[in-house]
Amino acid sequence: MKRGSKGAYIYGFAGGKADGRADMKKLLGGKGANLAEMTNLNIPVPPGFTITTEACLKFYESGKRWPDGLEAELGRNVQWLENVSGKGFGDPANPLLVSVRSGAMVSMPGMMDTILNLGLSDRTVQGLIRKTGNPRFAYDAYRRFIQMFGDVVLGVEHKAFEQALAAKKRQHGVTNDPDLPAEALQELVGEFKAIVHRHAKVDFPDEPMEQLRLAINAVFSSWNNERAITYRKLHGIPDTLGTAVTVQTMVFGNMGNKSLTGVGFTRDPATGANRFYGEYLVNAQGEDVVAGIRTPLPAEQMKKDFPKVYDRLLSVGKRLEKYFRDIQDLEFTVEEGDFFMLQCRSGKRTALAAVTVAVDLVKEGLITKEEALLRIQPTQIDQLLHPTIDPKAKVKVIAKGLPASPGAAVGRVVFTAHEAVELVEEKGGRVILVRQETSPEDIAGMAAAQGILTARGGLTSHAAVVGRGMGKCCVVGCNDITVREEERWFEVGGLVVKEGEYITLNGTTGDVMLGETPLVKPQLTGAFKQVLQWADAARRLGVRTNGDTPQDAKTAREFGAEGIGLCRTEHMFFGDERLPVVREMIVAKDTAARRKALAKLLPFQKQDFIGIFRAMEGLPVTVRLLDPPLHEFLPNTPEDITRVAQQLGISEQALTDTVHRLHEFNPMLGHRGCRLGIVFPEINEMQAQAIFEAACELTKQGVKVLPEVMVPLVGHPKEFQAAKLVIDRVARETMARSKVAVPYTVGTMIEVPRAALVAETIAQDAEFFSFGTNDLTQMTFGFSRDDIGKFLPTYLKDGILESDPFAKLDQDGVGALIRIAVQKGRSVRKHLKVGICGEHGGEPSSIEFCHRAGLDYVSCSPYRVPVARLAAAQAALKEKKK
Amino acid sequence: MKRGSKGAYIYGFAGGKADGRADMKKLLGGKGANLAEMTNLNIPVPPGFTITTEACLKFYESGKRWPDGLEAELGRNVQWLENVSGKGFGDPANPLLVSVRSGAMVSMPGMMDTILNLGLSDRTVQGLIRKTGNPRFAYDAYRRFIQMFGDVVLGVEHKAFEQALAAKKRQHGVTNDPDLPAEALQELVGEFKAIVHRHAKVDFPDEPMEQLRLAINAVFSSWNNERAITYRKLHGIPDTLGTAVTVQTMVFGNMGNKSLTGVGFTRDPATGANRFYGEYLVNAQGEDVVAGIRTPLPAEQMKKDFPKVYDRLLSVGKRLEKYFRDIQDLEFTVEEGDFFMLQCRSGKRTALAAVTVAVDLVKEGLITKEEALLRIQPTQIDQLLHPTIDPKAKVKVIAKGLPASPGAAVGRVVFTAHEAVELVEEKGGRVILVRQETSPEDIAGMAAAQGILTARGGLTSHAAVVGRGMGKCCVVGCNDITVREEERWFEVGGLVVKEGEYITLNGTTGDVMLGETPLVKPQLTGAFKQVLQWADAARRLGVRTNGDTPQDAKTAREFGAEGIGLCRTEHMFFGDERLPVVREMIVAKDTAARRKALAKLLPFQKQDFIGIFRAMEGLPVTVRLLDPPLHEFLPNTPEDITRVAQQLGISEQALTDTVHRLHEFNPMLGHRGCRLGIVFPEINEMQAQAIFEAACELTKQGVKVLPEVMVPLVGHPKEFQAAKLVIDRVARETMARSKVAVPYTVGTMIEVPRAALVAETIAQDAEFFSFGTNDLTQMTFGFSRDDIGKFLPTYLKDGILESDPFAKLDQDGVGALIRIAVQKGRSVRKHLKVGICGEHGGEPSSIEFCHRAGLDYVSCSPYRVPVARLAAAQAALKEKKK
Repeated sequence: MKRGSKGAYIYGFAGGKADGRADMKKLLGGKGANLAEMTNLNIPVPPGFTITTEACLKFYESGKRWPDGLEAELGRNVQWLENVSGKGFGDPANPLLVSVRSGAMVSMPGMMDTILNLGLSDRTVQGLIRKTGNPRFAYDAYRRFIQMFGDVVLGVEHKAFEQALAAKKRQHGVTNDPDLPAEALQELVGEFKAIVHRHAKVDFPDEPMEQLRLAINAVFSSWNNERAITYRKLHGIPDTLGTAVTVQTMVFGNMGNKSLTGVGFTRDPATGANRFYGEYLVNAQGEDVVAGIRTPLPAEQMKKDFPKVYDRLLSVGKRLEKYFRDIQDLEFTVEEGDFFMLQCRSGKRTALAAVTVAVDLVKEGLITKEEALLRIQPTQIDQLLHPTIDPKAKVKVIAKGLPASPGAAVGRVVFTAHEAVELVEEKGGRVILVRQETSPEDIAGMAAAQGILTARGGLTSHAAVVGRGMGKCCVVGCNDITVREEERWFEVGGLVVKEGEYITLNGTTGDVMLGETPLVKPQLTGAFKQVLQWADAARRLGVRTNGDTPQDAKTAREFGAEGIGLCRTEHMFFGDERLPVVREMIVAKDTAARRKALAKLLPFQKQDFIGIFRAMEGLPVTVRLLDPPLHEFLPNTPEDITRVAQQLGISEQALTDTVHRLHEFNPMLGHRGCRLGIVFPEINEMQAQAIFEAACELTKQGVKVLPEVMVPLVGHPKEFQAAKLVIDRVARETMARSKVAVPYTVGTMIEVPRAALVAETIAQDAEFFSFGTNDLTQMTFGFSRDDIGKFLPTYLKDGILESDPFAKLDQDGVGALIRIAVQKGRSVRKHLKVGICGEHGGEPSSIEFCHRAGLDYVSCSPYRVPVARLAAAQAALKEKKK
Repeated sequence: MKRGSKGAYIYGFAGGKADGRADMKKLLGGKGANLAEMTNLNIPVPPGFTITTEACLKFYESGKRWPDGLEAELGRNVQWLENVSGKGFGDPANPLLVSVRSGAMVSMPGMMDTILNLGLSDRTVQGLIRKTGNPRFAYDAYRRFIQMFGDVVLGVEHKAFEQALAAKKRQHGVTNDPDLPAEALQELVGEFKAIVHRHAKVDFPDEPMEQLRLAINAVFSSWNNERAITYRKLHGIPDTLGTAVTVQTMVFGNMGNKSLTGVGFTRDPATGANRFYGEYLVNAQGEDVVAGIRTPLPAEQMKKDFPKVYDRLLSVGKRLEKYFRDIQDLEFTVEEGDFFMLQCRSGKRTALAAVTVAVDLVKEGLITKEEALLRIQPTQIDQLLHPTIDPKAKVKVIAKGLPASPGAAVGRVVFTAHEAVELVEEKGGRVILVRQETSPEDIAGMAAAQGILTARGGLTSHAAVVGRGMGKCCVVGCNDITVREEERWFEVGGLVVKEGEYITLNGTTGDVMLGETPLVKPQLTGAFKQVLQWADAARRLGVRTNGDTPQDAKTAREFGAEGIGLCRTEHMFFGDERLPVVREMIVAKDTAARRKALAKLLPFQKQDFIGIFRAMEGLPVTVRLLDPPLHEFLPNTPEDITRVAQQLGISEQALTDTVHRLHEFNPMLGHRGCRLGIVFPEINEMQAQAIFEAACELTKQGVKVLPEVMVPLVGHPKEFQAAKLVIDRVARETMARSKVAVPYTVGTMIEVPRAALVAETIAQDAEFFSFGTNDLTQMTFGFSRDDIGKFLPTYLKDGILESDPFAKLDQDGVGALIRIAVQKGRSVRKHLKVGICGEHGGEPSSIEFCHRAGLDYVSCSPYRVPVARLAAAQAALKEKKK
């Protein structure tokens, strides 16, 4: 029978002809659209139809009722399916059985539910027995249907069925389901129905159309179950997509030894190698492959045992790969020798495979370089640079924090930086440093550790920023854990983890796991380099790095950084030789004493700059003047005060007074940034002198140096002017003394909202802007990055915010200030160089925003440079597309 | 001789005809312009000329050199003056002597310097002797000239001359200057010249034209002396005005007993009473009146002794008052019976006089009501509401802090709130509470004290806000003092002030004084009420108050508040009965326990609202939901933790853990504002319930209640939506239960920069905006109000900022956000009600900005309501003028 005209809500597919197409994913879901396309390609697909996402949305609009006409359309389509399949829905002689599956535009694995074998009842099961001559198969199909339907549609707990099944196996003295005889399964059917009646207070529906209606409702409703909502929230999928429902004739891979079922990838999803990768089971249903009760066989075995099926599978796979121009994830079933495709979709792949496949497809002429670039998730690039947890490993997640710096790390728990260094250096062990929060004094311990875990702090906390800078796995703000540093243990949900025990961190997901988990080392392949080369050709944004040491500079340069966008000079103030001098400077009673201490710091700073300038030869280096409040350099505890006072040769009372005097209620909004250099211009003088003496010395040696001096935390043009005055004077004097000229510029961070609002006054004097989006985000939202952990989880859970604004740039609010500043700044200085050096400079969606906002470059931690190069390319390509 | 055409830089005045006019103050300075005008009015003024401010500005432009042509013009004008006066400059027979005075557009008392008797030399003094027959007079004039010239022009320290004069008096055995014989004065002339030579390494110039040139240079230069710069900075006077120089023929009030000199006011400058007020000295020069060596006689005495002069003076005064339409400050001299006016200007007056005179002048038909309103400084209104320091009192200023709440206070120093209460209640004493900083727990002590002094904090710190709310004198951020609360003393510059010692505070200037200074009580006159009535008729802006108690509401209503713009509910969380319940709520282990504690709080909050709503019957009351972070309600010290843990019946460790868990690095940017009610919606529920139960109860009693519920710290529309959902639900439920309808609105603070940037999304749901400019200023600048003291003094001194942005609204930065928010908010909600409830709502220049930005109302502390009413009227009138 001919199908007739397509209805409003249902699209059919059968016998080489489908109402839908692959590009109708929004309407038919990924699954439905691809089934339609495969049908059109004359690939054998069991006939069926798809109810559109529009029907689902109307269902919600009208208070969970079906839209007008859907009922009638469904009836017509069931009839059509009966005709096409030559079976009858509820026909006890030749029953039509169908699967009902959800399918949204975006693949949401595990989030939606499936029902198989719908159409079975006490009457139709007899037909199945007669047709197959296999009562065991038929009753097994029936009890599975009741179980799935009971669980998904009627909300009966899975466990109840499992217990009955287990009891039955005990009763029959068997271990595995397949060993249960037909009679036992028949009994189970009765018992399962009783379970349904007991739990759901309804009789199990016997009428197939009623079964189908309830199943469709269940799929619609599952769009808004908690798991689905959470998944969408986590993956940024709009709630307004809705799901489609595909109803498809059942085929059975478990009809005997000429039946089989399996899954496959047209290329290796782990490595990207161009060879078929698949698994299958003989005489089994799809779910058996997934459930892992029997061990599936590798595709190579099929080549021997079912060579025709194998050839068919590979040729279908290649055809689909060519058609869809991407690696395909396939589901297939062979029913008594007849081959059917049940699903095809773009295959999920590892980062390594994503890059390899993209490059190979370009070589094979299937896709362009631009398409290849757009296909790779920038975050996948990040994975390639860090160790990852072996996908085969079993892990025990004990807590979840914020994923602050990607990769995985394994080590013994230590609670102090000192112990971290000791354990690693003296005993050669691997450690994870666990702290309430970290401070600059922990840096040596952080460097020694494999990874860092903190209970406090957000994505721009000290631990997070330093961790990323070091390319080191880091999980922060793990509120679940209570850390007792002094007592050398932490606790989470009643579990106490003591010093020396192994834990594993996943810095990409924020998972904290107990035990020593095997890791996979990163691999940088030729394809990786190829992709980044293409990216460089495609992007307009420059990519620099945030780096404070010659080592950072070298690493980043190897990763392709085109300069340093943020060199934080305060990181040079720590270190055993320097800290006492810095403290001497801070407790100085007057300017003269302060100058004396600063003079001792000068040679250190100068050497730092020489190292960095040399490593970045020929590339610009943006040096930020001292930023943190001075109290960060002072001791906190009474014991430390006693010790440091002795070192400094002053009384404890005097040091306590200084600590007290410098204490701040809100240090983030306190005496820091350019405010330091305005109250103590001699600090700016020393730093400028160190910069320009280093630059002059290297210039004399023939090293090309391009210093850009950056004034932090400017909010008023006069603040910038005051700082620039000192910098320019020292530059002039130093160059005159050295008898050499160094080209340099002086610019400012834009990190205080006011700076953006009056940018046209600041740009009168400032030669470049660099957005410090960490602080800008803090002040625009009024969110302390160190305290956000108290409410951010609720905000994300309740959907107040879609993402952590310290991770992804808030384009509406902070972004508005960025646009204002760029526009105002360039209104008075047309070619004002504008960059970003906040942590957002390495986050793909933020990079895309920076591209659109007309920035000149982004700057990010060394290990994010490759990510940024790709993201910048994608931003340019997306713009081109429009 | 005719004067001829007026030159480029010099304007003459003589014999009823002047080149200048009163409205040329910018060019001729206040003094020069008024001398010209008096001349034009045929009031006897010694002839002279004024060198313009333009000449001064050109002098600076060309590196302290005279502009072309000035030299020649000066020569011509001196010649003209010689002709007019019939005397010769340097003529030993009949010498022309002149005074040289500075005069800027804006009166800068004490900032610029004056030279009298210029033209005297060893030669010309002989002529003066011959003409007057009075060698004592002549040598006295001469030695005064050398002294002034030496000091002002040649930079010789005043002290050197004083010492020589004192020695001379000792030598002659006299106590008073006038008792020195002519010979002694003649000797002094020689000695003074020797002093000049010794100190300035130059001979005292003998040639009058050279004297004049040097004097003019000195006046020009004095425009940029340190005192002048500081004064201008403090008073917001532009540096680009420049000063004029007036050169005027000398007249002598010290030529004998028919000569006299004096000053007067056409009305009493202290009370504004319409009676002449003046003092004079017979046979004296102007400076003698000021110097206070002889006690001047009151004008009433002149009426008896010199009735003609008296009548002349009064009639001139009345004429000038009519002409200038304001109270006049006069300087006059009678030289041997001839009456001369030396200066007239608008008289400085007390706040009381300003108001009285303005109202009287309107009654007399001299000025309009609008002019009257524009003449009164709104800050003067403030003075009328508070005690002030007796102007006659001698004070010893020992430190200076930020003037946080106006008025003066005297009391014994105490260091804890507890002692403040004890001393006042039990012993009936007056105390000043001195603290490092205050916290909500100090409120009882603050209420008991006469005034508050803190070492920390800015103009919106806790002490400042609460102080202003109570109308209580308060000086904050007094960095000079070191407070040792435990040891019961504070120290400033080596001086130790112990508990129980008297100090005096001036909250209008920030002065801290040692000892018990007499105060003057405030007086609210009929004129005061009249002015405010006129103001109400003229203003467009509404004026509300910030008030947290029924008492605040009553006070403010009496001062004319038209509603409450900010009722801070957290102030209701303190108090002996409530704090334990609040703490119980905070340490609650789960929502149920939290609800239980909140239920106990509900009746308290409800009673608070009943009181406030009743006091504000018929007027809107904006209630802000809980704002501060919860840790503010917890104890800090180990002792307090022990005590509170016992009260709460939980372990010390548990409470310590809670305190630790709630600790924040930057509480200002932490878990506060609407973030509390999103994480703990039950808090919003309780507060909404208290508001609406109170409102319903009163409505039933026939009391008209207009609650406006305000959500604080909103930065994202979804935050507001989440809060509004709860408020609306509770309102609905409560009204349904009470069977009464209360009209209410729900709106938001705009205090986070992001809120202003996305205001169009927030105004979709918010029915009103209220700018919380304290927080908005903090976040826009990135300035913590509690920590700004570390750099603000330098910022003001160096001119980075012109004023404290927490005192005067930053119109460029914060103002830009306000304008953006108003525009965006009203783009989606045309009649969006917009107000301001930050501390700026009571500051005149900020109020003017609010008027221009189109706000509907300002809200300020009760004692600032009258100020705001006047400032709002002035804003409207200024706009009308344009």
